[in-house]
This record gives sequence, C-alpha cells and structure tokens, in this order.
Amino acid sequence: MKRIMLTVAYDGTSYHGWQVQENGITVEGELNRAIKELTGEVSEVIGGSRTDSGVHALCNVAVFDTSSMIPGEKFSYALNAKLPDDIRVISSSEVACNFHPRHCDTRKTYEYKIYNAPIEDPVKRLYYHHTYVNLDVSLMREAASYFIGEHDFSSFCSAGAQVDSKVRTIYALEVIEIPCENVGELARDIIIRVSGNGFLYNMVRIIAGTLMEVGRGAIAPSAIPSIIEAMDRNAAGPTAPARGLVLSKYEFL
Amino acid sequence: MKRIMLTVAYDGTSYHGWQVQENGITVEGELNRAIKELTGEVSEVIGGSRTDSGVHALCNVAVFDTSSMIPGEKFSYALNAKLPDDIRVISSSEVACNFHPRHCDTRKTYEYKIYNAPIEDPVKRLYYHHTYVNLDVSLMREAASYFIGEHDFSSFCSAGAQVDSKVRTIYALEVIEIPCENVGELARDIIIRVSGNGFLYNMVRIIAGTLMEVGRGAIAPSAIPSIIEAMDRNAAGPTAPARGLVLSKYEFL
Repeated sequence: MKRIMLTVAYDGTSYHGWQVQENGITVEGELNRAIKELTGEVSEVIGGSRTDSGVHALCNVAVFDTSSMIPGEKFSYALNAKLPDDIRVISSSEVACNFHPRHCDTRKTYEYKIYNAPIEDPVKRLYYHHTYVNLDVSLMREAASYFIGEHDFSSFCSAGAQVDSKVRTIYALEVIEIPCENVGELARDIIIRVSGNGFLYNMVRIIAGTLMEVGRGAIAPSAIPSIIEAMDRNAAGPTAPARGLVLSKYEFL
Repeated sequence: MKRIMLTVAYDGTSYHGWQVQENGITVEGELNRAIKELTGEVSEVIGGSRTDSGVHALCNVAVFDTSSMIPGEKFSYALNAKLPDDIRVISSSEVACNFHPRHCDTRKTYEYKIYNAPIEDPVKRLYYHHTYVNLDVSLMREAASYFIGEHDFSSFCSAGAQVDSKVRTIYALEVIEIPCENVGELARDIIIRVSGNGFLYNMVRIIAGTLMEVGRGAIAPSAIPSIIEAMDRNAAGPTAPARGLVLSKYEFL
C-alpha cells in the first residue's frame, strides 16, 4: 500500500464544489470514480481545500492510498485519460503513508478576479466577477492592509463552518489593477490576491465582497479593523460570487 | 433612417462563426434576431470580420440601418437585454449612412493564444490551444520577422476564399511569452499577436500553425520567405485550432 499525492486543476463551473455530496457531481467524486476505473480499488481521496460550488483551482491537492503497481508519477497521465476535460491532474507523486494535506503547515493563495467595466466581457464571464460600478483601487489597497497578520476572522466566515478556532494568518493581500485598453479606457481587471495559512468557509469571497464595498465608497478603509474586531458576520460586506475565485497556489511549508 | 455601428464581443465556443448560415446558430444571426425583437424591423447587420466557427472577439464591428427612435448610444444596453450572455455589445453609436466597415482602411489585431505546458489547464481550455511540445520562442520570433510588410499571402489562405487579391500588409507580429510559475516551471502562455490591414481566410491560424512548426523545430525560421514566395497553401504549416484565436482590436484608420 502506498499513498499518492495529486495536484489537481479544475474549472469549477460545472461542479457542485469539491466535496462528494448526494446531489450533483463534484471534483472529489470524479477523482474517486477515475481512480476506481484505473485501479479497480474503491478510493476516497482526501482533499487539501474543499472549494465551493463554482470555484476554480489551478493546484488543489488530493491524496489517496492504493496497492496499484503504477509508479506515483504516472498517475497523472493515467487518471487524465479517465477524467473529463475540465479536471486535470497536473502532477502526481508518492508521499509518506501518514501524509495528510490538511494537517500540514501550508501557505495557500487565492485570487479573486473582478472585471470592472461598463459591459461584461463574454470571454471572461465564467472566471471573473463583472461589476460596472467603478471601483477605487487605492481605497481597496488601503483597506487590504488591515487584513494582514493573525486575526480572529469570525466576521469573514459564513454560518455552517465547523471549526474550533476562527483565528487565521494572512501573509499578503494585494489588489492588482490591469488595464484592458483594447476594450475601452474604463475597462480593467482587478485581481485580489490573498495568501494565508488557511481560510474559513467563504472567507476569501467575503473579503472580496467587503473590498468591493470599499471600492465603491460604501465602507471606509479605516472601518476594517472594527469590522474584524466585531467577530460578527453581519459587520462585513456581502459574499462575492463564486465564479471569480480561483485557488492559485498551494505550498507546503 | 439612420445607420448604427456596434462593437461586439463574443465567446465563439457555442457559435458556428459570425456569418448567418442555414445550419447552426451564428453571432450575426443572434444580432439580427435581437435587433428585430428590439425594433420590430427585419435587419441584416454588416459585419467587419466574418470570424470562423469557434473564434472569439473582443471588438468585432457590425452596422445596420434602422428607423427606430432609440438614440445610437443606447442600442448597446437595449440589445444586451435581448442577447445571450456569450455575446455583448460593448458600445454603439450612429455613423454616416454610407459607412461600411469592410470598405474602410483598418488595422485589425488578432491574438493566437497557446498554452505550452505538459498538461492542459482546464480554465484555459476554451480560449487557448494547448500543446505539450516545448516550443522555442526565440525561433518563433525570428520566423515572425519575415512576415512583416506587404506580401501575397496565398500560402497562408485556405481554399474557398473568394477574394481578388491575396496581397495583405502585416504591420506587426509579436510572439509574447508569459511564464505560469504557479503551475510549474515548464508552463507558459505563448501569445502570437498580429496586426494587419486585413487577413485572408484562416490566415492567422495558418501563421500560428506555421510558427508552432518553427517552435518545435520542424521548419527553420529562414524557410519563411520561400514559403511566402511559393504562393501555395501546401508550403505552409497546418491550420491551428480555432479556439486559440481572438479578434482583439479593430481600428479604423
């Protein structure tokens, strides 16, 4: 018996999130199916990040145990032959038998992508959240600076989370602006890139929703510390839509 | 009666190209339908670029005549309410009654997007051509330089084109490399960006297919001048797949 780690990319558009559930197909469910087709063994992968319905990933992590003779690094190609084209195993390798991706110290990076322009770009519609309200990026950057560090992020956690502690550390939170001059002088991408040691349920989407409220002038940047201190979900802004979110980097420390 | 010009963006994935045809939905057909629903008038838009099945656009151009009282700049929002979300009218305005987008001097820019990595990225799969063959960008750039200027591009035109002259001018042809470090050191985007006064049937896709042959070492950069001089479609490389192509800029000179 050996343990295999997969790095998995997916377009979350068609999936009811990562985690297996009774109704609707999930990324985890497709991986379990592909592993069974390949090895004949019933497998239950352990996921690194249990992303929500509609969220994308460049490099989520999954591990599973197998007695297959296939070498660890060959699982990537073998599983891709069994998977739909919106899920790809980017790499695979054998890891220690007790390796568990959620019990490791990690640095995860998410990007929340906003297309800020008067009219939606059809080619971005599946992977960006479009808003025509002109956002003030300098205000968003000022607000972002207050999130850095270790805080209790209860104000940025949706109900239903089952965790003991809501303390997390944010290492970096950037607001990147990229002009889209071809489309018009008002059009730009705004990318919120956040790295941390872990994220609560909907945390990145609530941070993004709050920063958009700041960008449109509804919340002052200086209000962020008191929103964090409130430890109350109602103090923060709305949860931004799933399609703009991508898990972009997953590092084991 | 007045003439309205539309700037139109679309995700070409679900369309049988721009031009109305008997079988399959097209971008032009959807525009004609939306205009009829809005104004009650039967309209036939005149397109700037009749893009192929599966090709995308950020800013194609269409004009049509109407006796509607709707102001020119309001058509954009009014038509978007009638169009599917993979077609958006980015802007609209009234133009001279004899304005014809294909009878103007223009500078069109297309981008051909390649994702060059061992394994496909699901989030790019609809808008990039994926190849795992490692491409040598410096060879591609050397080859690209030979295309600049006025040439008879018969070698880069698919059969079935109905044009008098196959002479076109290419103003610029860049090969842009963007590393995708999150996914792995071998992963990168390669963007072929070409601007010209006009393009023959499949011309950009044949240029892209030929540059990929150069990138993998199958055609020498120095062979490009003789491929152009041959004025024979068989001299050039294959036609690259449609999904990687986007009409990215449309300028009237």
